[in-house]
Amino acid sequence: MSSTAGQVIKCKGKPLVIEEVEVAPPEAGEVRLKILYTSLCHTDVYFWEAKGQTPLFPRIFGHEAGGIVESVGEGVTHLKPGDHALPVFTGECGECAHCKSEESNMCDLLRINTDRGVMIHDSQTRFSIKGQPIYHFVGTSTFSEYTVVHAGCVAKVNPAAPLDKICVLSCGICTGLENPGLDIVRNNNVSLGATVNVAKPKPGSSVAIFGLGAVGLAAAEGARISGASRIIGVDLVSSRFEEAKKFGVNEFVNPKDHDKPVQQVIAEMTNGGVDRAVECTGSIQAMVSAFECVHDGWGVAVLVGVPNKDDAFKTHPVNFLNERTLKGTFYGNYKPRTDLPSVVEKYMNGELELEKFITHTVPFSEINKAFDYMLKGESIRCIIRMGE
Amino acid sequence: MSSTAGQVIKCKGKPLVIEEVEVAPPEAGEVRLKILYTSLCHTDVYFWEAKGQTPLFPRIFGHEAGGIVESVGEGVTHLKPGDHALPVFTGECGECAHCKSEESNMCDLLRINTDRGVMIHDSQTRFSIKGQPIYHFVGTSTFSEYTVVHAGCVAKVNPAAPLDKICVLSCGICTGLENPGLDIVRNNNVSLGATVNVAKPKPGSSVAIFGLGAVGLAAAEGARISGASRIIGVDLVSSRFEEAKKFGVNEFVNPKDHDKPVQQVIAEMTNGGVDRAVECTGSIQAMVSAFECVHDGWGVAVLVGVPNKDDAFKTHPVNFLNERTLKGTFYGNYKPRTDLPSVVEKYMNGELELEKFITHTVPFSEINKAFDYMLKGESIRCIIRMGE
Repeated sequence: MSSTAGQVIKCKGKPLVIEEVEVAPPEAGEVRLKILYTSLCHTDVYFWEAKGQTPLFPRIFGHEAGGIVESVGEGVTHLKPGDHALPVFTGECGECAHCKSEESNMCDLLRINTDRGVMIHDSQTRFSIKGQPIYHFVGTSTFSEYTVVHAGCVAKVNPAAPLDKICVLSCGICTGLENPGLDIVRNNNVSLGATVNVAKPKPGSSVAIFGLGAVGLAAAEGARISGASRIIGVDLVSSRFEEAKKFGVNEFVNPKDHDKPVQQVIAEMTNGGVDRAVECTGSIQAMVSAFECVHDGWGVAVLVGVPNKDDAFKTHPVNFLNERTLKGTFYGNYKPRTDLPSVVEKYMNGELELEKFITHTVPFSEINKAFDYMLKGESIRCIIRMGE
Repeated sequence: MSSTAGQVIKCKGKPLVIEEVEVAPPEAGEVRLKILYTSLCHTDVYFWEAKGQTPLFPRIFGHEAGGIVESVGEGVTHLKPGDHALPVFTGECGECAHCKSEESNMCDLLRINTDRGVMIHDSQTRFSIKGQPIYHFVGTSTFSEYTVVHAGCVAKVNPAAPLDKICVLSCGICTGLENPGLDIVRNNNVSLGATVNVAKPKPGSSVAIFGLGAVGLAAAEGARISGASRIIGVDLVSSRFEEAKKFGVNEFVNPKDHDKPVQQVIAEMTNGGVDRAVECTGSIQAMVSAFECVHDGWGVAVLVGVPNKDDAFKTHPVNFLNERTLKGTFYGNYKPRTDLPSVVEKYMNGELELEKFITHTVPFSEINKAFDYMLKGESIRCIIRMGE
């Protein structure tokens, strides 16, 4: 145990401005983390803007981070002070039907909840300023030097892995999110997993990626890692193709350049359709195109992008009867505690290239720059160094 | 070679009435079969009625049968005279991308074609009456004592297996088909395969079967064989539950008995949704319900029933994002030549119970009775003995 275990810690956090925040010790089943690196995700911006929302306030944003366990609450056995860890906005209680299912990661207890600003254990917050409660955000609140997180939302990772790189795996590069209009966080890890875990392209196969924002780039990286030979990027902005090449995209289609539906263009390019498609825009039209552009007989389309509330996915059922499959994914089907350590190893052995996602780095004092980079579309990921 | 090899065979066939038909010898890549047993399928009735169609006429219907190879054409190596065989309306050329894919059975060359009334080899028919051509139907035309079929559409089966039982595997019990409005034949083998090969329920899991006609009963049989513990039948006719119990259905929901959507009723019965659902009615509402009634995280819904031409499948994309999967199937994803022999073995070892599907048997001379049984809804399957 470190000398601070069991003590209230005073540190800097940023609800909207940087304030000195008191962080209470972890209660049963919780972990107090010293956050070393965090990163700004579009989801933070979305909830910070709070358009059409009536959120708990004030609260501490941030959900993509890497840190070190400072202390653990009663009953926490899989983590100890000093462990390197990634906090995750969704968790793994290990006990519910979802955790026990090999197929699901949608933990009943710790599934993302964007409305709850308190800890599950006692419905209290662990943050305060001069006695006034400051609320949590998606269970992580990593824009703080210290935070308290449910132990089921903390993945223990290889201490040799650089936290300033692997922190993007805890949520990821979600700037590509165009329509985060629902209570679901979508990000690069999601889309990496969407390809690797859900679409599962075979070596030598063809994959269409709809949307070449950060989410789509991570999906493309998943296709590259999987050994796909044709990775077709689809985007309304042709200039995105250049950057996308670094992530394995080797063909490009701009729907605006064609008179016919993009699914037909892709089918003609690929002798009937691609083997896999991953939809990373949230546009309902792109979802339909992504599904309809996969080959009959074996094609699989995976939805990652978050749609608008009133969108309806619509297609002729014969597109299914001709042996196409449509799936969606939440957090790339990764179980955070179980699966993140092996994703970190993929980075460590050089298979997964995280560096190309990290375009900027700033000290905590300049966090507003990270917002600027994102809002201007200049960054894929900007790492915020909490220690400075 | 039998003594009839290479000779025109005169025999009885039934385009609409039983006539003496001349059956030419098989050309290259073809097989002439002596049909011993055939069975009436709703698809035959649909195309016989020819509502809204402008078909080739006259033609010989029938596509669900068992027989013995009489002779083979040039280049046919996997079959020889005397082999027991099941002709199938869809084939397996072994050469195309679909045949080479482990995932697909939608052979490019021999995929069902309900418009082509001639052989692929020379665009000629092998049937004639006094020199006038009589056309083929879905490549099988089994309402004839002899027929000529592409060798890729003939599965060689265990000669110890009784052809009067296993003949229903060549297409199957498709009377459950309410809306065969498209060029796709759907049947019991399809729905058996839909469950066993596509939905793949695990032992102890829950499966909802939409529609308890013959197709749904075969889907239920697939769930029973797979070891599902809860098999929930959904049908608008409550009296069907009694018969369905023989096929493993152990719970029943009639949507008419509830004020709320049936997917909600099922979710409440199953703590969030069934593990698998198989849609066997062709109703677009049932398709949506079948998809929406599967559990988030791991639920898989499989479409078997054939929709109307103008139907659109419509759901909120979040139902996918919550990790539900929707697939369709063609011929239960069975590759006819590769997979049918092992389905026959499933019958031989007692795993698959075909007897309960066979409710009637008639001699060829009474084939009209088979039509009556089907049209009145009295039969699941009526076997027609061609030798009498």
